[in-house]
Amino acid sequence: MSVVEQPSRSAAARSRLLRAAVEAFAAKGFAATTTRDIATGAQMSPAAVYVHFRSKEEVLYELSGAGHRAFLKLIDDADDPTQPPAARLRAVVGALAAHHARDHVWSRVVNYELDSLSTEHLDAIGVMRKEVARRLGAIVDAGIASGVFDVTDPKATTTLLLSMGVDVARWYRESGAMTPEQIGEFQADMAARIVGARADGSAPR
Amino acid sequence: MSVVEQPSRSAAARSRLLRAAVEAFAAKGFAATTTRDIATGAQMSPAAVYVHFRSKEEVLYELSGAGHRAFLKLIDDADDPTQPPAARLRAVVGALAAHHARDHVWSRVVNYELDSLSTEHLDAIGVMRKEVARRLGAIVDAGIASGVFDVTDPKATTTLLLSMGVDVARWYRESGAMTPEQIGEFQADMAARIVGARADGSAPR
Repeated sequence: MSVVEQPSRSAAARSRLLRAAVEAFAAKGFAATTTRDIATGAQMSPAAVYVHFRSKEEVLYELSGAGHRAFLKLIDDADDPTQPPAARLRAVVGALAAHHARDHVWSRVVNYELDSLSTEHLDAIGVMRKEVARRLGAIVDAGIASGVFDVTDPKATTTLLLSMGVDVARWYRESGAMTPEQIGEFQADMAARIVGARADGSAPR
Repeated sequence: MSVVEQPSRSAAARSRLLRAAVEAFAAKGFAATTTRDIATGAQMSPAAVYVHFRSKEEVLYELSGAGHRAFLKLIDDADDPTQPPAARLRAVVGALAAHHARDHVWSRVVNYELDSLSTEHLDAIGVMRKEVARRLGAIVDAGIASGVFDVTDPKATTTLLLSMGVDVARWYRESGAMTPEQIGEFQADMAARIVGARADGSAPR
């Protein structure tokens, strides 16, 4: 995972600290991680953390922001609005699930440490989380509107579709039976069932 | 939530400590929680923790064990093996999802702090987790065997059905639009779609 990519030396140090922070937060949680842990993981001095970040919370905010921008970029890249709703749903659900397997350590920090953010930072991240849900919800709505999805509760359906992707980061193991791509493919198939999409794209019975 | 119910005074103190530990672990994670935090939450002296538990890890193991026994009991209570597979699936998936909403704080500790257990304790909990998956998997298999479910990958399907229940503990809020029972009902409906169950219980096309 490349959290931040910038050419300068300072940016390289910052990026090393962020990578070390992901590992530390994932291993023992935000509250138990010290700035010394982060510095040690990056093979830097404890003071170095404060050269680049105001606080441990700012490190988490940076990681969380990068993580949520990655979710949004993933949707942008996967979603082709000129395609039929079922194809769009498959692409977006598949991409999110595969991402949560591939980057499961980072994704756990991004999804499970939200309560450790300051109120102001949580609000900013909340805007991005709502946007992720809004984009997936728009595809569900498009399928309903064109009569190819059979959905009774669009909001609960969208929550479920996001939820099954997010939870991959909890149960995924590199030693497991399925690759991230296979998990994405499987969840895409299941998403089509959940929304009651007809295989041929025609209107449901 | 009643983690432990026993009549003696010692058991009452133990139960109070366990309840305080759930709150503390959920709020800042196992690693950042001190035995003092647990004692303070139970309005007891720090030494009291060691009267009842050998270590903070033993407190987590006790909570995790109680949590997993609760999952198994829930399945036992919900599952009537004389019913058709689709009804059994609905009952078990619905019960697990509703439970993860109702006891979301406890469920987060039970599902997200496994890596904080000792190897020996993790093995013991692992046996119970496998048993939860085995029971749900047996219902999926029964539906496939009797031709009423249309499932291509029974293992991945079982993982998904468990996963969507577990993740309720992450996103559920008491202020949300759905009650735990409504979430259970919705997930039961979606489980039927995921396994391709016919509404009338007949074999799939």
